[in-house]
Amino acid sequence: MADTTKDREYLMGVDLGGTKILAGVFDDKLECLGRAKKSTKAQRGADVVVERVAATVLEAIDECDLQPKQIRGLGLGAPGACDPETGTVIFAPNLAWKNYPLKKELEKRLPFPVFVENDCNIQTLGVYEKELKGKPRHLVGIFLGTGIGAGIILDGKLYRGFNRTAGEIGHMVLEVGGPKCGCGNKGCFEALASRTAIFKRLEAALRDGHKTVLTEMLGANLEDLRSGDLRKAIKRGDKLVERIVEEAAEYTGIAVANIINLLNPEVIVLGGGVMDALEDEMLAIIIETARDYAMNGTAEGIEILASRLGDEAGITGGAVLARRETRK
Amino acid sequence: MADTTKDREYLMGVDLGGTKILAGVFDDKLECLGRAKKSTKAQRGADVVVERVAATVLEAIDECDLQPKQIRGLGLGAPGACDPETGTVIFAPNLAWKNYPLKKELEKRLPFPVFVENDCNIQTLGVYEKELKGKPRHLVGIFLGTGIGAGIILDGKLYRGFNRTAGEIGHMVLEVGGPKCGCGNKGCFEALASRTAIFKRLEAALRDGHKTVLTEMLGANLEDLRSGDLRKAIKRGDKLVERIVEEAAEYTGIAVANIINLLNPEVIVLGGGVMDALEDEMLAIIIETARDYAMNGTAEGIEILASRLGDEAGITGGAVLARRETRK
Repeated sequence: MADTTKDREYLMGVDLGGTKILAGVFDDKLECLGRAKKSTKAQRGADVVVERVAATVLEAIDECDLQPKQIRGLGLGAPGACDPETGTVIFAPNLAWKNYPLKKELEKRLPFPVFVENDCNIQTLGVYEKELKGKPRHLVGIFLGTGIGAGIILDGKLYRGFNRTAGEIGHMVLEVGGPKCGCGNKGCFEALASRTAIFKRLEAALRDGHKTVLTEMLGANLEDLRSGDLRKAIKRGDKLVERIVEEAAEYTGIAVANIINLLNPEVIVLGGGVMDALEDEMLAIIIETARDYAMNGTAEGIEILASRLGDEAGITGGAVLARRETRK
Repeated sequence: MADTTKDREYLMGVDLGGTKILAGVFDDKLECLGRAKKSTKAQRGADVVVERVAATVLEAIDECDLQPKQIRGLGLGAPGACDPETGTVIFAPNLAWKNYPLKKELEKRLPFPVFVENDCNIQTLGVYEKELKGKPRHLVGIFLGTGIGAGIILDGKLYRGFNRTAGEIGHMVLEVGGPKCGCGNKGCFEALASRTAIFKRLEAALRDGHKTVLTEMLGANLEDLRSGDLRKAIKRGDKLVERIVEEAAEYTGIAVANIINLLNPEVIVLGGGVMDALEDEMLAIIIETARDYAMNGTAEGIEILASRLGDEAGITGGAVLARRETRK
């Protein structure tokens, strides 16, 4: 009997980011068997990036002592709006891509079907099936990192919207006239609570003469500052960093309340690099603020939690997408 | 052959508000054949209100020279969270109701099935099927009146959320630390752009010594001020009123942009008393601000328009609900 994709045992997930490519091999129960990683090199152009994605994928497969023909399908999360039907990346500012036929280009290089989806959507899918076992009917995943994005699952299915850009929660205005955002507007959630926003507030505080142990740790210019450094500074009793991180948590709580009021999902999951590093410092404040700002009766029974998947959310979600698509 | 509800020709819609009850008889093509209206008298208690709803319904039927047995079903919009399965009003602050079995109580008094839904949901349903002919896949209806609420239709179906309170857009925070809202928080959309918010800004401006023709029209205390008076004042060249209404339109535009970024619906419809009275003054500003604040690429092809249904949106939506439910 011929080898059909259906008989193949393994799934692949790829997280294609602006700076790195992460690939993972998964079994049908979503256990990760092995991974590989490369820098993206977006500035070298789309064709180079696609070659690097394919190479990372093959490396992960080899790392697991498997053959490409044992892979049933690959799900990939890209940092932008995607058309899941055609597998085209409609636009991805961090890659400088517009209407790039990613599925087609990858399928030329790999002997299994490829499915393309927005990165926040795919992370939410990973959290939904691996961590929450597909139980909640409605789920919103909010990811706090350099930027802020969300994925929306309604009735168990990804909700994408008319232009396939639903979930752009980072550009929800929370504070009219607030700090300037990368998008050109002011007061966006992303300009108030992303890693970029936290760093900007720190820099402004330093310019105003405030002190922080971070300068001892990293030098006066806070070179290579990461979310983990903020946690270390707070643990060392740094009040400035503590206050700035608390403010970011409060804004996040207000954004969560807006989602509860508007979409009333059963579960809201928080993830991304900032949450991974600062969960202990932020989660309780986020929950308290969200419950405070949600309308009476609207937040009852709704869970707000932090994902434990860390940077595996993307590749796990990719495997979930591949599993969903190849089960059809 | 026995008379079954299916053979009956007419549908009823009821808009149950905090101050008035409106009932309308519709044919299967959603043309309104006749209406009746009563004050709600909520302070007299739920049983009196139910009697008054039933009486308004029977009056509308009689007004059309019809008999109750010719009615196939009735859809009712209530100002609060509703459980459409049981027909219970879970909570409705304006009526001071909690877990009131409205469907059951009305069906005791009327010889046709009754379906209960949140008022903003039902208005959105009315706009969706009567004005938009059920064409858009996703629709958000935003209603600006004394308060602000929304209804969400995704994939052609009402989206209600976990606690059946989805669409509480009036309590989406747009301006952290902004003006106080009736809900206890600050900076909610409702505290920035509802009729109540506009009136409060006017009063504050008068206290600060600003002048308006409204005091000539209505006296120093602006007694019985209505949205229509604002329009008249603007037409008479009143710069203060113009500026305050423009500000409300700008906040509404930002709220619309938040919806476009987050839910990316195909169409956003604006309705409610404020929009009905001030469409000419507000709609262009709302659209311009929304397109300005929506992320690049997210608003493409999305329509933002004003409903023409006015206060018929609620009863029309009731008829739509009755038609959907009795077609099953």
